[in-house]
Formats: sequence, structure tokens, C-alpha cells
Amino acid sequence: MQKRYMFTPGPTMVPAEVLLAEAAPMIHHRTPQFSRILREVTDGMKELFGTEQEVFIIAGSGTAAMEAAIANTCSPGEKAICVAGGKFGERWAEICDAYGCEVNVIEPEWGRSFSVEQAEAALSESPQARVLCITHSETSTGALTDVEGIATLTRETGTLLVVDSITGVGVHPVRMDQWGVDVLVSGSQKGCMIPPGLAFIAVSPRTWDVIEGCTSPRYYLDLRAMRKNLQGKTTTPFTASVSLVRALHKALEMMREEGHENVFARHARLAEATRAAMRALGLKLVPENPVNGVTAVWAPEGIDTGEMTKIMRDDYGVTIAGGQGHLKGKIFRIGHMGYVSEEDLLVAISAVERALRELGYEFEFGSGLAAAQRALFGEA
Amino acid sequence: MQKRYMFTPGPTMVPAEVLLAEAAPMIHHRTPQFSRILREVTDGMKELFGTEQEVFIIAGSGTAAMEAAIANTCSPGEKAICVAGGKFGERWAEICDAYGCEVNVIEPEWGRSFSVEQAEAALSESPQARVLCITHSETSTGALTDVEGIATLTRETGTLLVVDSITGVGVHPVRMDQWGVDVLVSGSQKGCMIPPGLAFIAVSPRTWDVIEGCTSPRYYLDLRAMRKNLQGKTTTPFTASVSLVRALHKALEMMREEGHENVFARHARLAEATRAAMRALGLKLVPENPVNGVTAVWAPEGIDTGEMTKIMRDDYGVTIAGGQGHLKGKIFRIGHMGYVSEEDLLVAISAVERALRELGYEFEFGSGLAAAQRALFGEA
Repeated sequence: MQKRYMFTPGPTMVPAEVLLAEAAPMIHHRTPQFSRILREVTDGMKELFGTEQEVFIIAGSGTAAMEAAIANTCSPGEKAICVAGGKFGERWAEICDAYGCEVNVIEPEWGRSFSVEQAEAALSESPQARVLCITHSETSTGALTDVEGIATLTRETGTLLVVDSITGVGVHPVRMDQWGVDVLVSGSQKGCMIPPGLAFIAVSPRTWDVIEGCTSPRYYLDLRAMRKNLQGKTTTPFTASVSLVRALHKALEMMREEGHENVFARHARLAEATRAAMRALGLKLVPENPVNGVTAVWAPEGIDTGEMTKIMRDDYGVTIAGGQGHLKGKIFRIGHMGYVSEEDLLVAISAVERALRELGYEFEFGSGLAAAQRALFGEA
Repeated sequence: MQKRYMFTPGPTMVPAEVLLAEAAPMIHHRTPQFSRILREVTDGMKELFGTEQEVFIIAGSGTAAMEAAIANTCSPGEKAICVAGGKFGERWAEICDAYGCEVNVIEPEWGRSFSVEQAEAALSESPQARVLCITHSETSTGALTDVEGIATLTRETGTLLVVDSITGVGVHPVRMDQWGVDVLVSGSQKGCMIPPGLAFIAVSPRTWDVIEGCTSPRYYLDLRAMRKNLQGKTTTPFTASVSLVRALHKALEMMREEGHENVFARHARLAEATRAAMRALGLKLVPENPVNGVTAVWAPEGIDTGEMTKIMRDDYGVTIAGGQGHLKGKIFRIGHMGYVSEEDLLVAISAVERALRELGYEFEFGSGLAAAQRALFGEA
């Protein structure tokens, strides 16, 4: 028997209760029954986004919501500031470029967080920028961005703050309205504990004026049509991904039962324990200011993380992620977001230890697990 | 007890086997395990499309694939001929318009099929058209288009034939390569028997030259990225909708077991029986040349189909569809595509009879069922 565990930074493990909700007999999407579910799910996402605005649910992956953010706000030739301190930050620049924006790409060293001071400099350098695109939780490096701090700057300007919180929502507290974020996007297969296939987006009141005037082509991702359909008839402009919406309905119910503050505290505890374990193994974290959904770690000298993750998956049934882009082979990433318990985490750390041992890295075997145990029990 | 039946032209009923495949524990999308599934599913869709080209699987609804068709082929200012003989044909015109095309909209009366002769006239009127967009099976009216015939014209010209076969694939035989279709799109919640949330698109070899030169912005729907990822690494550029792809894997297996020719023959039989039943009830069909996935019927004078479908759903647990656009209230549509047996069909016809009876329409009660019974038994 080889039981399988998934500690990837998305897709994440899905509770059996949610899988069974997804497997319920099909219903039609233009019915009072589905509209009721859609409204409850939308309201649940509003809580996680920290907004009174509508959260629109798109059938698509997180990138679809990122593209919706740009296609609805940036007209060709407009200026965009994109912070590319990782693979997902780079995606903002790629999308803005595809839409004909004049892109100012800021490239913090991967693992470094874009700071409020850097944001201030970027905004004064490009005061006409239509958008400043940042990544709340950069999944490729595990670096956290101070969205709240940066929003204090943008809300005083005409530049919209566009935030990818795909691995932030449901993991970290998000206060879109209170912070002053203009566009926030997220995805389903992360903190929300459901399979991939849904993307989420909400926009601030002032963003609607920009959307109305935006000349970029869009149809499937047109936020005006989404608003009209949701507010008018509690429906979606195009066929909703019915089974995934029902999975989300169940997942949000489970998160509400646990209590959102407890969900965030659990993620903080899992992250702290993972970091403690990695330090005990003599390893160094990639980010200076880490997120709580994934821990990115430098591999020991001479160890290829492609090989390491393959051993973990094939020999121990434990899937984690390697590095992306120029960090491929050099780092490994342990996802601990969504449906991950303290007990699960021990499985991940155990497998990391075993693979490192097999690959010849010298360390006190079991010391990572012991450190996690202490941290989780509050004795760190 | 009220058992529920769905005879809508999408979403359609999903076999329990498929629902359970969808509910399997999550796996990561960048693994050999998922790549194997993706390859098998892609190959299965190629059979249904009748093409040797790749069929790209998009996380999104069918409209996403329609937009992909236009965003990748039409540059702003180029000419597009769009046949809008129903709600979904109109969608082609809306998308082409959103992308800045100069759109020549041809509007056959709803229910009439766009003919080869009309196509010939349209192509000679707009010889520079980049695309001719048609609807294989127009779900809003139940009208079938002679795609094969029209393709004999376009393949001799520089105009690409772009076909929405969202309710055609898996219902009617489709021979994309043999006919000479350039772009074919479909969706998951129709003949393919899975929930909504996947869209499909394939393009002919000559279309790639147009795609490379197309200047319209696209990122999530960029076919170049889809091809590169599928052919290079048997993967998708963005996170695949893992659970729906696995559902499709199971559904395609079931369709292969039944035999594709048998699947098409079953749809033809269901459609013929439904038409016979409606004629026996003294009702008139909307299309002159009907499709096999849905039967669109004019309501008797004085009967509102909104009221009729509500009675069917609430009192008898049977969901069918009313009319769309200017046919709202005037027609009803019985979907019989995907996971519909001969026995199921009797349930639909029974509920139509009951609702019409309640609404005061005079006819011989049971005559629709009897006609269907005869047609299904080959005694029509």
C-alpha cells in the first residue's frame, strides 16, 4: 500500500466531503436552486476577500482572473507597473505586455519582498501608471508582500492596485476594502480546498469607471457582463462550472465551521513549524519575509530538487514542488495550504528527511520532525 | 419522493460513474500520471472531432473556446462573416465585434439553416473575410447547418471556416479534417456527458499561419502556448481543471464502449422519436432541418413556455428549456443529448403532456408517448 499525500502549492488536497459535493447529480445553472448556491458562495468569497463588493466567479484557472484584471482596466498604450519577483509576478508583466501596455517591470531578487519604499519610488517614477500589479503571496519563492502598506500609497493616486492573492486568500487574512485594494484575484485550488477550475475577482468602486472606459477587447472575461448577470439575475453570463461551485459551497461551509481566524492561525502554525523543521535540518529559506501557504527552501549544495521530489513522490507517495524558472532544481517548496492538518505536516517533513538522506545530505535524522513537533506543540 | 430528470440542452445528465471519477482524490497537474490522462483524453476528443490535429482542452465554458477561435485568428479591422440564426450564432458576431472586426452579420430567420448557397453568396460578397463563423447545431432553435457543404467552399478560399459544434460533437458525426473545417470548438456539458467547465478547440494546419500573424491580444486563450505545452510536455500552459479532465476520461471510455457510431445512432433515434411525439400532440417544430441533440417546438397558441417549464420542473421534477431571445415564452426545447436513454425520453414526453394538459391545451392524452414508443420500437 502506498497512500498518497499532496503538499504542492496548488492544487492542494481536497476534503472527501468536498469531493462528494462536487459529485452530486448535475443541476441546471439557470434555476433558482443554482442561483441560491451561487449567492451563498459569492457571499462566502466576499468574507474571505474582505470586501462588500461582489466577487465574480469565473470558470477558468487563476490566470483567467489575472487576465480579466488587465483586460478590463488597461487600454493599449497605457502604463503598467508590474512587480516580477517570481514566476507569478512575471505573469503580470506578460499579460500587460500582451495587452499592449507600456510595462515598467520591477524585478526584485527572487525571494525578496517588494517594499512600500520601492512602491513609493515606482509610483513617483510612473505617476501616470494605470495599474500597479503585485503578488500578495508569491508561490514560486514563498515571499509575502505588504499589500496593506502599498495600498496606503495607491489609494491616494489614480493608479489602481491590482493584487494576485491566488495563494493568499483563505490562508492569510485579506481586507480588500479596508486596505484599499482595487482589483483582487484568486483561484480555487489553493486555500479554498477545491480542485482547480474556478477563478475569483473583485474590484473597488472607483475601478468601475476605468472598466467602462477601457478599450481592450474582452468577452468571456468582461466584468461588466459578470456584474449585470450577478446583480440582475444572480447568475453568470456564461455557463457556470456547476460542480466546482457546489464543491466550493461545501468547502466554504467547512471553513466557516472551523472559523476564519482559526483557519488563518492554523496556516501560521503550519508555516512556523515547517520553517523550524527546515532550520533544524540546517537548510536556508528562500524568502526573507515568508508566506504561510508554502515554504520555499534552498537545497543543500549538490542536491538537485528535481531528483529529490521524484524520490519523495515515487518512493514515499508524497508530492511537493521543485523550483520554477531559474530556481528549477535549486529549491524545493512544501505547500501547507488548505486541507492540511498538523498531523499531515509531519508526513511531509518525514519524506523530506528521507529523500535528503538518500541523496547523501548529512544531518541528524529525525531532527526536522522533532523541531516541527516542538513548534506545533508550542514549545519552539 | 420526487426524482429529478434533466432534459436541458446543456448542462446534461452526468453518469454516476463519471461523477465518481470527478470525485477521485486530487492529483497534481504537472505529473506523469496527469499527463497520461491528458494525452488519452486529447486523443479521445480527436476521434470525436474527426481530426488528426491536437484538440486543446481549456478550463472554461464553451464561450472561452469561441473567444479563443476569434482572438487567435482575427486582427482588429479584419472582416468577419458571422451567421446569426440563433442566440449562439449571435455570440460569434458579438465576439468578433468585441475584437474590433468589421462584421458582416447574416441573419437567417431563427429556425432556418444557413445554406451552402447563402454561404456562396456571402463569400463572394466578402472575399477578403478572414473568417466565416457558423454554428453546427444551433441550440437555441434546434437547427442544423450543413458544415460539410459549406467547407467545400471555404477550403478553396483564404477565409477560415470557424465552427461552433458545442452541441454537435458527441451527438452528430463530425469529420473536421475530411470536411475541411479550420477551427472547431466544443464544450463539455453536452454530448460529452460531463459537467460544465471544459472547452475544446482544434485548428487546421493552415490556420496556424494566421494565428502566428494575428495581432489581437490574448494570454489565457493563446493557442500558441497551448500547442507548445501539449506537444512539448503533454501539459497545459495554465493549471488544468484536473477533476473535470478525469471525469471526461471516464465519459470518453463509456462512449468508446458504446461505440461512437452507436452513440450517434442513439441520438438520431431519440431525436426522431421526440419529433414524432410532438407531431402526434399536434405541435410544430421550430427548425426546418433539425439537429439530433435538442428538439425545439412551438408552444400551442396562448401557452407560455415559461409557465409550462416551471410546472414540469416543480410538479414533475423534469427540467427542460424554454426559449431564448425573442423566442422566450414561445417555444420549448427538449434536450436529448449525452446520457439519455430511450426510457428516459418517455419521462420527458410524459411531463410535456401533463404540463400542456394542465395549461388547457386539448389533445389526446398519451398520444405523444404512444408515438414515441412506436418510433423507438421501429414501428413509426
